[in-house]
Amino acid sequence: MPDSLIDLDSLVPLFRPDSIAVIGASSDPTKIGGRPVDYLKTHDYRGEIYPVNPNAAEIQGLKSYRTVTEVAGPVDLAIFSVPGRLVAAAMTDCAAKGVRAVIMFSAGFAEMGEDGRLEQQRITAIARDAGIRLLGPNCMGVVNFSTSMAASFHPAFAEGVEPGGRIGIVSQSGAFGGIAFQLARDRGLAFSQIMTTGNEADVEVADCLAYLARDPATRVILMYMEGCRDGAKLLEAMEMAREAAKPVVVIKLGHTEAGAQAAQSHTAALAGADAVYDALFRQYGAYRAHSIEEFFDIGAACAVGAAPRNDKVGLVTVSGGVGVLMADAAAARGLDVAAMPESTQAKIKQMVPFAAVRNPIDVTGQVVNDIGLFQRTVELALDEADYGSLACFQGSMGRSPIYEATITETWLELAARYPETLLVIAGLSSPAFRATMQEAGCLTFTEPTHALRAIAALVAFRSARAGHTPPPAVPPAERALPSGT
Amino acid sequence: MPDSLIDLDSLVPLFRPDSIAVIGASSDPTKIGGRPVDYLKTHDYRGEIYPVNPNAAEIQGLKSYRTVTEVAGPVDLAIFSVPGRLVAAAMTDCAAKGVRAVIMFSAGFAEMGEDGRLEQQRITAIARDAGIRLLGPNCMGVVNFSTSMAASFHPAFAEGVEPGGRIGIVSQSGAFGGIAFQLARDRGLAFSQIMTTGNEADVEVADCLAYLARDPATRVILMYMEGCRDGAKLLEAMEMAREAAKPVVVIKLGHTEAGAQAAQSHTAALAGADAVYDALFRQYGAYRAHSIEEFFDIGAACAVGAAPRNDKVGLVTVSGGVGVLMADAAAARGLDVAAMPESTQAKIKQMVPFAAVRNPIDVTGQVVNDIGLFQRTVELALDEADYGSLACFQGSMGRSPIYEATITETWLELAARYPETLLVIAGLSSPAFRATMQEAGCLTFTEPTHALRAIAALVAFRSARAGHTPPPAVPPAERALPSGT
Repeated sequence: MPDSLIDLDSLVPLFRPDSIAVIGASSDPTKIGGRPVDYLKTHDYRGEIYPVNPNAAEIQGLKSYRTVTEVAGPVDLAIFSVPGRLVAAAMTDCAAKGVRAVIMFSAGFAEMGEDGRLEQQRITAIARDAGIRLLGPNCMGVVNFSTSMAASFHPAFAEGVEPGGRIGIVSQSGAFGGIAFQLARDRGLAFSQIMTTGNEADVEVADCLAYLARDPATRVILMYMEGCRDGAKLLEAMEMAREAAKPVVVIKLGHTEAGAQAAQSHTAALAGADAVYDALFRQYGAYRAHSIEEFFDIGAACAVGAAPRNDKVGLVTVSGGVGVLMADAAAARGLDVAAMPESTQAKIKQMVPFAAVRNPIDVTGQVVNDIGLFQRTVELALDEADYGSLACFQGSMGRSPIYEATITETWLELAARYPETLLVIAGLSSPAFRATMQEAGCLTFTEPTHALRAIAALVAFRSARAGHTPPPAVPPAERALPSGT
Repeated sequence: MPDSLIDLDSLVPLFRPDSIAVIGASSDPTKIGGRPVDYLKTHDYRGEIYPVNPNAAEIQGLKSYRTVTEVAGPVDLAIFSVPGRLVAAAMTDCAAKGVRAVIMFSAGFAEMGEDGRLEQQRITAIARDAGIRLLGPNCMGVVNFSTSMAASFHPAFAEGVEPGGRIGIVSQSGAFGGIAFQLARDRGLAFSQIMTTGNEADVEVADCLAYLARDPATRVILMYMEGCRDGAKLLEAMEMAREAAKPVVVIKLGHTEAGAQAAQSHTAALAGADAVYDALFRQYGAYRAHSIEEFFDIGAACAVGAAPRNDKVGLVTVSGGVGVLMADAAAARGLDVAAMPESTQAKIKQMVPFAAVRNPIDVTGQVVNDIGLFQRTVELALDEADYGSLACFQGSMGRSPIYEATITETWLELAARYPETLLVIAGLSSPAFRATMQEAGCLTFTEPTHALRAIAALVAFRSARAGHTPPPAVPPAERALPSGT
């Protein structure tokens, strides 16, 4: 990439380091300087860990160093947990040591006004001259789940950072990164990477997006951003995500005057003309969400479900009223609520005389007496009509002591028999039901209209990448390392 | 009300009967004809219960009658759990007996086409000539929580129907009524009444709305409707709700072509020009929701929270990024994200040097070290700025083993000290935290943007009823009966 604005190789020590120094390390594992040491140790990070603290010989059972320059082996990444006034000296040490990347938790820089901005510039210049990539300041760090590397102080990561997730997230806001992790866990979702960029003195959201576009463990990319300084770089990164055929879901903050002002005092971001972002996201087929719930709903759909082969959706419901709501939601989002063939309608009518059969199919309360009705109806619809996706509202069967086991069997059979159709289930569900469905590639929602929103998003992602085939998705620097998935 | 289209007195035997016959009663408490008998008995309905079944002398421990005409005492309400072909004869019996209202579960009428429509007309004529009010056919009945009367076959009501709720709901869709009950229970909400109207051969959504407008137990009215035959009646009922200063939240289905078609085959409703409904709802200040989640979010807000005295909202957050999201959501919904006074900003800055202080106030991760910071900040904001409401994002403190008890205390103190301000809390919460906050009149949400949506809805309700003072809210027929709240 001769003309690229993004240097992917230089980001590898930041996001996948083999050795980490924690500058300002603490013996107390609940302190900001103690947490990263604790996480790296207890979550089984496989690289070297070097606590740096001039006042201790040992930190949490590890040998401690007075300065980073005293470490004997190479240091890929240094985490800064020191007050702002000590940052410049620590950066100078890192330059001397040949550290390749720095994560800076420390706050009190550009987000605080002119003095802070100048100090941030001074420190950034030291890093740049030494070829050190800098994440932050005023950020919450990085977690690479593929390598169990939690380079963060957020309390959420005490719960563990198991590998296997497919969702990569980059957030300009630090605290949001930690909250995102908890929200995702509540839904049984797992991440491949969490990156927070804070003040973006060097590494920006766009750099992270580009990295995730090439990260083999990441299938879908979530971006939570307040603004961006380098539009051309963002464009290049969006193009990389499109080439990799990875869906991008974005919350871009500051679309109102009040929000833009708040962003300015938060990460010193220039929110910029919102319409420009909107056009950019549309051009690259990114999905713009306006709530955290929507952000994760769509992200989860991309991580779990296959994109439907067409925009025709079949609707099956145990409540006629919810069926109408779903038909409205589907049509309002541009999906085709195509009618069942007449002959199919006649067959279903024979099974459930009082049912609506056109689309939606309302199997009515009779399903309570004959749960097999439900499966036979769905099979007829999928055998005889050309639905790329099927959305079903099943009331509370997914958490009913009487029906949960049977309905779970039913969906597993349907998922195995119709791998070409995206199956989406709405209604009240137990965590176990949701987890089983997710493993089978079926999406689950409580809210029926959200089922249709997710289907419409997947259809749109498919259209946006039509004609783009993914290139080999592994960047050179990563080829030697095992993939996280 | 000489010119009224709505006869409220005639609806009392339907919604608050003193005696109920169940025609087609079953000895099996899980059958459609067995459930109402079971619910009325076990949930402690205080009126008379008369099972009617020609093939049994006793049903679920109660004396059974061959026909309703054999019952000795008066019968206010008859529930029909019989197949369509037996309905006409049963209605003739009810007319002979002097039954005052009928709830008809039976399906297979107007929703099935021309033959069913004619049969429905014939039965409705019998009822009308005898002065019997008819709910349904093709409905799921009624639950009056004030009198523990579950005249329904929906399995959800097996869980109990305790009094004390403030939300009245009317749904054209039967199954939705039962699902609504479960969804509301999941949120710790309670209903005053659930009414389902089905095919609306006689009693329409508008009649129910009018009844709820005067029902002393009901504070907020939720309507789930597919269409309406009598626009003038709907107008009159909306006016009654406005006069009673009761917020109305509505889902009106069939706003797309696909949805309108589905509604036609569901409850034979004529969805009608959607724009007309939209204008009507706006005129009367009703809130139109487009998802079930939104429907209950706004309904719950009206049931729990007081309307804010102005549209100025203070924002407090532990995550700057979520603060910006909230500022955007507030401004996008017309709320005023007014800046804190300069002097207040200076005071907060002294407590949290790195905090944003204008509005939102970002107390940052420092709250983890000093949770009192949070309370002092909120107090300063409420003492010194004129915010009618305050929305706070508190991360996962509401379900954290370390912080939950303290933050619960904090909010209880704040709610007691600032009764004039609507307090709204967003973040991850335990069910216990949510329940305690709800009792204290504070709203809770997981999704931060939903907090602002609810505040904006409450502000709009207040504006819409400005100048309307509620008349005495008890209709004559109810004055002799104890109130449910």
